[in-house]
Amino acid sequence: MTARRDSDRQADDQAAGAPSPDALLPALDDRQLRLLHQVGREWDHVTGDPQVWRCALPLDPDLGSYPDAADIRPTRFGRFVNVAGRGGRLPVIEVSSEAETLPTLPGRIAHRARRALLGPPLSATAIATERMRKLVALPVLSADALSSVAYGPEAMLAVLVLAGSAGLGYSLPIAAAIALLMLAVGVSYRQTIRAYPHGGGSYIVASDNLGRLPGLAAAAGLLIDYVMTVAVSVASGAAAIASAIPSLAPAAVPAGICVIALLLAGNLRGVRQAGALFGAPTYAFIIAVVALIAVGLTSAAARGFHPVPPPRLTATEGIGVLLVLRAFASGSTAMTGIEAISNAVPAFKPVEWRNARTTLTWMIVLLIVMFAGIVLLARLDGVIPNARQTVLSQLAHRSFGTSFLYSCTQAATAAILLLAANTAYNDFPRVLFLLARSWHAPRLFLRVGDRLAFSNGIILLSVTATAIYAAFSGSIEALIPLYAVGVFLAFTLSQAGMVVRWWRRRDDPHWRRSLFFNATGGSLSAIVFLTAALTKFTMGSWVALLAIGLIILASLRIRRHYDLVAEATALHPHAVEIPAQPLTPVAGNGAGRLRQEAGSRAREDTAGTGAETSPWTEVRAKTVAETEEQPEEIRHLAIVPVAGLDLASMRALAYAASLRQPVLALHLSPTEEEAERFHRYWQTWGDHLPLEVLVSPHRAIVAPLVNYIWSLHRERPDLTLTVILPEIVVRHWWHRLLHNGTATRLRRALRPLPKVVVTTVPFHLPR
Amino acid sequence: MTARRDSDRQADDQAAGAPSPDALLPALDDRQLRLLHQVGREWDHVTGDPQVWRCALPLDPDLGSYPDAADIRPTRFGRFVNVAGRGGRLPVIEVSSEAETLPTLPGRIAHRARRALLGPPLSATAIATERMRKLVALPVLSADALSSVAYGPEAMLAVLVLAGSAGLGYSLPIAAAIALLMLAVGVSYRQTIRAYPHGGGSYIVASDNLGRLPGLAAAAGLLIDYVMTVAVSVASGAAAIASAIPSLAPAAVPAGICVIALLLAGNLRGVRQAGALFGAPTYAFIIAVVALIAVGLTSAAARGFHPVPPPRLTATEGIGVLLVLRAFASGSTAMTGIEAISNAVPAFKPVEWRNARTTLTWMIVLLIVMFAGIVLLARLDGVIPNARQTVLSQLAHRSFGTSFLYSCTQAATAAILLLAANTAYNDFPRVLFLLARSWHAPRLFLRVGDRLAFSNGIILLSVTATAIYAAFSGSIEALIPLYAVGVFLAFTLSQAGMVVRWWRRRDDPHWRRSLFFNATGGSLSAIVFLTAALTKFTMGSWVALLAIGLIILASLRIRRHYDLVAEATALHPHAVEIPAQPLTPVAGNGAGRLRQEAGSRAREDTAGTGAETSPWTEVRAKTVAETEEQPEEIRHLAIVPVAGLDLASMRALAYAASLRQPVLALHLSPTEEEAERFHRYWQTWGDHLPLEVLVSPHRAIVAPLVNYIWSLHRERPDLTLTVILPEIVVRHWWHRLLHNGTATRLRRALRPLPKVVVTTVPFHLPR
Repeated sequence: MTARRDSDRQADDQAAGAPSPDALLPALDDRQLRLLHQVGREWDHVTGDPQVWRCALPLDPDLGSYPDAADIRPTRFGRFVNVAGRGGRLPVIEVSSEAETLPTLPGRIAHRARRALLGPPLSATAIATERMRKLVALPVLSADALSSVAYGPEAMLAVLVLAGSAGLGYSLPIAAAIALLMLAVGVSYRQTIRAYPHGGGSYIVASDNLGRLPGLAAAAGLLIDYVMTVAVSVASGAAAIASAIPSLAPAAVPAGICVIALLLAGNLRGVRQAGALFGAPTYAFIIAVVALIAVGLTSAAARGFHPVPPPRLTATEGIGVLLVLRAFASGSTAMTGIEAISNAVPAFKPVEWRNARTTLTWMIVLLIVMFAGIVLLARLDGVIPNARQTVLSQLAHRSFGTSFLYSCTQAATAAILLLAANTAYNDFPRVLFLLARSWHAPRLFLRVGDRLAFSNGIILLSVTATAIYAAFSGSIEALIPLYAVGVFLAFTLSQAGMVVRWWRRRDDPHWRRSLFFNATGGSLSAIVFLTAALTKFTMGSWVALLAIGLIILASLRIRRHYDLVAEATALHPHAVEIPAQPLTPVAGNGAGRLRQEAGSRAREDTAGTGAETSPWTEVRAKTVAETEEQPEEIRHLAIVPVAGLDLASMRALAYAASLRQPVLALHLSPTEEEAERFHRYWQTWGDHLPLEVLVSPHRAIVAPLVNYIWSLHRERPDLTLTVILPEIVVRHWWHRLLHNGTATRLRRALRPLPKVVVTTVPFHLPR
Repeated sequence: MTARRDSDRQADDQAAGAPSPDALLPALDDRQLRLLHQVGREWDHVTGDPQVWRCALPLDPDLGSYPDAADIRPTRFGRFVNVAGRGGRLPVIEVSSEAETLPTLPGRIAHRARRALLGPPLSATAIATERMRKLVALPVLSADALSSVAYGPEAMLAVLVLAGSAGLGYSLPIAAAIALLMLAVGVSYRQTIRAYPHGGGSYIVASDNLGRLPGLAAAAGLLIDYVMTVAVSVASGAAAIASAIPSLAPAAVPAGICVIALLLAGNLRGVRQAGALFGAPTYAFIIAVVALIAVGLTSAAARGFHPVPPPRLTATEGIGVLLVLRAFASGSTAMTGIEAISNAVPAFKPVEWRNARTTLTWMIVLLIVMFAGIVLLARLDGVIPNARQTVLSQLAHRSFGTSFLYSCTQAATAAILLLAANTAYNDFPRVLFLLARSWHAPRLFLRVGDRLAFSNGIILLSVTATAIYAAFSGSIEALIPLYAVGVFLAFTLSQAGMVVRWWRRRDDPHWRRSLFFNATGGSLSAIVFLTAALTKFTMGSWVALLAIGLIILASLRIRRHYDLVAEATALHPHAVEIPAQPLTPVAGNGAGRLRQEAGSRAREDTAGTGAETSPWTEVRAKTVAETEEQPEEIRHLAIVPVAGLDLASMRALAYAASLRQPVLALHLSPTEEEAERFHRYWQTWGDHLPLEVLVSPHRAIVAPLVNYIWSLHRERPDLTLTVILPEIVVRHWWHRLLHNGTATRLRRALRPLPKVVVTTVPFHLPR
């Protein structure tokens, strides 16, 4: 088990979450292979010659002797391709996409709908690893970060205006501090890129260098961050559109939810990050904002950089340290998404890490220019946030009037924000995948859908983002306090991890410089994190902190549960010596291939074992509750609850008898008279099998049966009790109301009982 | 099958719904017994000597050899009483009430809650058939009818005031017509009582004499009637209280829902119709109303019967035939409940029918006196309905002032209305029981709860009555149009049935007179039914008519479904000759009692059968899809889907191998590489059992497995495929999220497949 964990950790090191079948079925190491072999050797005594079992098969599992192909072609049921037949190395059967539909009407309808919505399924080999040039990578990987300038400066100003004109005076110093922070974090991430050329997400760096708990904290922060990215980007995009076309403003929230639904559908389809798709809006946005700043500064220069006085403001709060810190924390949301490039180093053309670093540098420069430019221009033009128009829209109006350029700017802003939200759709499921791979999240997040997308993670992101977005009515101002906390926690832990890493690798020639950069970035990030968490605690950051705490707690509990399961299901060699009588199938009547002599020999052998082994099983049963890992350990008793002597019960009784194991029929009567009556019927039938009648005077059904079976288990704990339930299968779910569903309730109630196997013998109604 | 139906019809004739175990497990007639015997004889060849099977049992099913009693006493698990041991005639086991609790924590909590709410369970012998004297029976059986005068006159007046003072002038003629109707229906029911001394409910009389469809229509009418009785009585009781204490008026609707909840709980507990409980409020109500009328008439006599002019009214509708008819239909709701005595004839002391008739006469007289008196007094005192106070409350104020007597009148009114609602709780489930007994309603309404109440019917009545009551905000005026339709449909059909009955029995000395009375009652009822249905169609009677239609339709569909099930599950003798080799349990290692010689002989015999019978099964399988009513017909193949080689899978494989039938293991891989890897592991384990690997490139799981199993079935349709699923059983439901639940999904998807048996081998996590 520990071996499995170690191999996980290695895998974490190597790949930043490329989906592989390995993840679902971990490879076995030498120790485990030895164990498997050992366990298998113990079976040798029991099952005897494997060839006998193979020959006993009554049909060809490769579907080779399938009557004739013409017979199945026109039907809608599963087609399989025999790979061995077409020259594969192993006798495996490949599932064609026709065989992926359940052979029922609802199954086919669901399949059609799925295919119509998502397109044809993709096989695992279709994972294309596109290598990007720097000019392609820049728009793809920086959409998230650059789009943040659409709401970051505004969020900062929105805090400062609370203190009136005096507050606005602080906008430039705070913006300078944030620009410095951007520089520091950017330089810091340059170190990460060099150290983790295979991709260094915050979760990987933090868990790698700081340990499990910081890793989980970073992951939790990232998960919150991605949910908030979707919510804030969509809200901000809606605001950009509503600024240009004010009549659309009332429809903003439902429109935002529709956008999230579109993102959901698109990502379930598996939209690839096509360079062209990302390139146009990102470059358009960059050009628009830079042009806007240039035009604005030119006109400001024309009037000698005299700032236009902002509209008269009434201060609702006094200017103070707290307010300045809050403004700083709000403004630093402009940095979100800065980590994207360090996650995606392997996507660059070689030399990957060098190209990634260059691109990061470009991005940081652009980010600082755009951020600082917008804040400066807002100051010079006296623009302050208002409810009807975004700051960027106001600035665009001042620079471009109401021209076509203005519309372009707003459209580019909305488009890049949509791309930023889409980035979260790539990253959120990937973090969940990494968590699930290290057993810290439900295994269902490991599953890759038939379009090669992490469907479950995508759905979870959509649901949570929609919930957050709707709960805050799409208000950016209300969402921002929850935003910064998660990102900067992840930044901080990631940089701290790098610091530890450099300290451990003091043989690296540049370790001192790198450590210094990372420590600076880390400390500044930590300050922002603390500022955001503390100054906005009552405004909403407590929600984010609580969510992070709960995610960490849940992931620890999940890991504990999986560890328990792994321990419980791990193979272990058998402690007790096994009697040496092979067991073989009795009634192998398939294709006349049964080796009669081997079969009959085996059957003679088993005749004696029954009485011989029972004292041993008796003793063993006292010590171990459930073992039954080997066929010979299993002593059977089949129990058939019969309600009446109809065909459904007959079929269950026949099935039970055909197993050639001891059978006990059970009947439950409300009165002794009814019990006698049933006894008479049983005698009329011929009393072929032993019958026990329970009289339940208070007409309870399920509990008495369960308790009786439990009593039998206590009488002979070594027996495996197979409860064989006749069940009428109806065509339509509403017909189920007409049958009492005792079988279902009984199956559920029997589930917790040890050594009780439940078999359902269906009886299908003809129509 | 027809035999079963006939015996049902007989049972219907005899008892008006006394719960009996017969109902759930119908007694077999001679033909069915012969068939059972014949089917059993066919098993003789197959199972051999029953004694061998009995001796093969590895434990004592009577729990006689239970280690020792001291060992189980302190545990909380099931205790059973061996009836044979304490001198019973048959070796049956009686379930003690401890054994009615599921041996799990939620099970025990649910049991405790149930017992605390409902009291200890009652055994079927506790059904006491109380015989009532006439003076006891009168209040018990007439509460429903007499309480109707609390809302009937008011409902009539509420229609008339729409035409202003002119309308009110019609109140006395209409009341006279209704009184005549009461008389006619009462005399008509006197005939029913004589003809059906075992109780003649409308459903029984109508289906007995008119056929199935009229019977179902009557039953549907009654079901609607009882739901409306609860809703209207509760609403009316709330109005009586609110009239006395106006400040309670706003809480009327929630209070009414609470009352329904109390009725639910009380009836689930099985409140018996204790004479004293019913006697006091009913007699108090009779005395109060009669006194009120007497005082009112005395004071009216003092002023020479000059009517007090009513308050000035503005007519919103002109007086016309339609309005008068509507008023007549509304007023006749005062007759609801009149049929109660004819349902309950067997509850009287002998001579039952004679006592019942006398009581009915008393009741009719009281009803006419009270109804006519109230209408007359309202006319004389110029009282008209208003929203704040009921008419009865206004009259009581005029007669008694605000004295203690007034309060008593209102309290008695509320109490008798509660009792009327409670009467519906007795009758609604009984009608459903009768419907279910004749296979026209889901069988779950046959079940008698552990307190001997028809719990399911009681719950259904509560839910529907609450829904109706809440949907109409407890407004009597809105509820009344739905009310009369159902009752008078049932009345009409019942009387019509009596007419047919007398016509068929023209040898009866009084047949002419009886037929005349029933025909009169029936015709008048039909007129009221048509009047209510047509004149109030748009006001709500369409809802009742639609509901009646839907109930009839549903009951016909239900019967058809049950007929289908009965036909499908009916025993039939086997068409094909059975080979004469007995089959016996192989590994009977129980208590050393296995007759070795019998067992081994049997086993030798079976060795040959496999190959011998296969051509025959092949042929047979082509003609009949699913038979398997006899053990020897069943050819097994066990299929074990394995996800990985852990302990849970090992246990499932071991279980499969221990059945000594051919086994095929299935593995699903996403890629061919993974398939090869799994193949290697399987080899390492020792390749003990045949393995087939399916490669599912699009990562689908359930559908490919189902399709593959379906393909195997098509390859060999004679085989019974047992799919053995390993399933990890977790302690808490939320842990299920952490496991993918493939077993559950697979079980559900396999259910519609023919000849596929699903076996779940549980693996219990230790904690």
